[in-house]
Amino acid sequence: MNIEWIGKLQDLIGEERVNTSEGDLFRHSRDESFHEPVQPDTVVFPESTQMVRDIVEFAGENKLPITAYGAGSGLDGAAIPVSKGISMNFEWMKDVISFNPDDLSITVQPGITRLELNHEINRQGLYFPIDPGADASIGGMTATNASGTTAVRYGSMRDQILNLEVVLADGRVINTGSSAKKSSSGYHLNGLFTGSEGTLGIITQITLKLHGIPEHAVAARCTFDTPKHCAAAAQAVLASGIPVLRMELVDAPSIRQVNAYGDYRFPEEHSLFFEFAGTQTSTEEEAVFVEELMQDMGCRNWERASGSKERAEIWKARHELSYAFRHIKGTEVMGSDVCVPLSKLAGMVDFARSEIEACGLLGSVFGHVGDGNFHTIIVYDPAIPEEKAAAEKINEQLILKAIEAGGTCTGEHGVGLGKMKYQRMEHGEAVDVMRSFKQLLDPEGLLNPGKIFD
Amino acid sequence: MNIEWIGKLQDLIGEERVNTSEGDLFRHSRDESFHEPVQPDTVVFPESTQMVRDIVEFAGENKLPITAYGAGSGLDGAAIPVSKGISMNFEWMKDVISFNPDDLSITVQPGITRLELNHEINRQGLYFPIDPGADASIGGMTATNASGTTAVRYGSMRDQILNLEVVLADGRVINTGSSAKKSSSGYHLNGLFTGSEGTLGIITQITLKLHGIPEHAVAARCTFDTPKHCAAAAQAVLASGIPVLRMELVDAPSIRQVNAYGDYRFPEEHSLFFEFAGTQTSTEEEAVFVEELMQDMGCRNWERASGSKERAEIWKARHELSYAFRHIKGTEVMGSDVCVPLSKLAGMVDFARSEIEACGLLGSVFGHVGDGNFHTIIVYDPAIPEEKAAAEKINEQLILKAIEAGGTCTGEHGVGLGKMKYQRMEHGEAVDVMRSFKQLLDPEGLLNPGKIFD
Repeated sequence: MNIEWIGKLQDLIGEERVNTSEGDLFRHSRDESFHEPVQPDTVVFPESTQMVRDIVEFAGENKLPITAYGAGSGLDGAAIPVSKGISMNFEWMKDVISFNPDDLSITVQPGITRLELNHEINRQGLYFPIDPGADASIGGMTATNASGTTAVRYGSMRDQILNLEVVLADGRVINTGSSAKKSSSGYHLNGLFTGSEGTLGIITQITLKLHGIPEHAVAARCTFDTPKHCAAAAQAVLASGIPVLRMELVDAPSIRQVNAYGDYRFPEEHSLFFEFAGTQTSTEEEAVFVEELMQDMGCRNWERASGSKERAEIWKARHELSYAFRHIKGTEVMGSDVCVPLSKLAGMVDFARSEIEACGLLGSVFGHVGDGNFHTIIVYDPAIPEEKAAAEKINEQLILKAIEAGGTCTGEHGVGLGKMKYQRMEHGEAVDVMRSFKQLLDPEGLLNPGKIFD
Repeated sequence: MNIEWIGKLQDLIGEERVNTSEGDLFRHSRDESFHEPVQPDTVVFPESTQMVRDIVEFAGENKLPITAYGAGSGLDGAAIPVSKGISMNFEWMKDVISFNPDDLSITVQPGITRLELNHEINRQGLYFPIDPGADASIGGMTATNASGTTAVRYGSMRDQILNLEVVLADGRVINTGSSAKKSSSGYHLNGLFTGSEGTLGIITQITLKLHGIPEHAVAARCTFDTPKHCAAAAQAVLASGIPVLRMELVDAPSIRQVNAYGDYRFPEEHSLFFEFAGTQTSTEEEAVFVEELMQDMGCRNWERASGSKERAEIWKARHELSYAFRHIKGTEVMGSDVCVPLSKLAGMVDFARSEIEACGLLGSVFGHVGDGNFHTIIVYDPAIPEEKAAAEKINEQLILKAIEAGGTCTGEHGVGLGKMKYQRMEHGEAVDVMRSFKQLLDPEGLLNPGKIFD
């Protein structure tokens, strides 16, 4: 075994920071995706940028792969160390480096999670709005360009990043941006390293934009005859220019599953969920405007609430959806994450629902319809190969159709392991340019090998 | 002379598309900056991506520099062909390739200008909001990552770009994004090519996000004792979370100059200009809220208007400012474009005003205070070297202070010729990474040579 280099690594950074326990190897072999787990040879817990640099240089000298690991909440295997080697966990790098409320910005280490970050800043009336659902680490969210339910207003991680400190494969430490809110200086390295899934460098600090907590919020939910009607209604809201904070589709079979799982009585129909946020007057006005628009488009069951408990109640079916499908005993789930131009959304959602019906498996269609981004969850029995194959087939058809429609195979989960094979189809010759950047910055291929490029 | 290759180029793409008239060489030797003009050897007017590709391949075979030219409205010399060769003008590539109102997007060729683009789409209730003041070409705005008065709400060009078609130095044609509103697929080439000032490739198509025209707008103007008070007031507006459409500072000497230039009677005080836009109720509410906030902060002369003519009247002093300084007979102007963290803005603006006062030259301090981005215009007599040197010294001091404060030497004009020497100071070792990308994509250094890197 590789005990020799592990011993040397322990000498370099301290025994307590290099872990080969069965439990840790198991934990770092997987994420929340259906991909095959692979255990690393060891897990390291650096405590500083300098220590990350030491480990990267050590890995370079010994030709060892390094795969960064955040909270393990990834959905396409980006953190699975498929070539083994070192899994680098950032649990011990959670510091707030500097919090600057007057600049509406904060600099943090990558291990801090989304909720921990908000806990630090909410007392100042500020929040970091990107919300992928899971309590992901900020480092992981940056590496995958995560987004979620608030992307319709705030965009993806990339839109919220002012600066990154990155350790390159050769040990150089660079800053990819500045603390200025906008810049036309030099090439935009911020954007390039965000979403690069640890393949171009290891992110060791992140400077984020922050936002004022809206003074008032209203949640609402309504239902339509078909998922296609929901998507068309969402498009109408966007065209109206109303700056919704969240706008989510959940189809009827998903509501049924949530009801069964939690013993609820939500109307088992195709539903749109809304959240409006801002000043009291503007928020109430927006909610009324959207209610009228939805009524015009044939919605039923419009319900709304502004108290924080009542809002949570309205959104419950959306929040518990993923859990309701993922925890059915003896089954596994496969997800998709395509994003298409808005005009193509209704047709895509319709197609996804019909394909799931046709194959006879339990499944959900839901997502961030304000961005053209939606997900499927298909539940299959891993003991029945035909079921997995059917789920894979639907997933692939959705991706092929999305790319054909001018969209992308992944709106927010990242390429990871599942979308490598679609990169050339989606990006054409641009893949060669991407690959040449990888080759330039990591000629030995030690940073998260086996990802993004086939 | 180089007549031989010019003849060959005429054979290749047609005589009428290769121009060496004195008038055209002169026009393409300069932009709106104070930098020394340099005439290209010839100006080409391609009509298609294929023709751009033919020219790029021809230039590669003959080792000829190519500098892209949009509307000539750049402010730091990015379009000046300092190594001569070919200036590539996009006047004959102004087509709308596809307009997709339902997707809130449009694909255009680079030569179309901002106003031409809006003319095409306004009838559908949509607009493209980025507004650098000049009627710049969309290609030039993309190449410099331009922004302007609406950046406080809509960000810079980079935030509005879904996809670029780019001809690389070796003739490959790539697409850097897709038509999806968000994506986590592959490396973010959109962001890298945006703002690269034609040094990494020639942009031949641009897919932009569009936005609904707000139903209602209110303009307002108020005055404060010092520019520092204006900046502090702007910061308070941002912290309140009010989504202003525009928020601009113009200092008292600038208003004085505008009054003299246009025979107006605007209050000659340090002024903040606002524009609010959205639904009628929300806009009116925002305007009232900001008025109260400004009164609390000691403003005077609050004026507001909602009719389109009256709004233009309120904003006149801001709109005519640049012209009022740039057209004083026998003088030239030097501008700066720093952007700093918001908390540093008041001090920077104060410093700029004092330095201009101290040197005795006529000058303006104004800008996009909601982004931490402001400009100076200093008027000097080109026949008096001391005056130019004094202006340059202030410019340099501002840049050094901005970088020291964690900001950038250029918020929106681009590096061009004037900020090359500050790249290493601002970006440190990241400059080497940028330069390695340039070397990778343009090993012969033929795409806009002599820019960005010293």
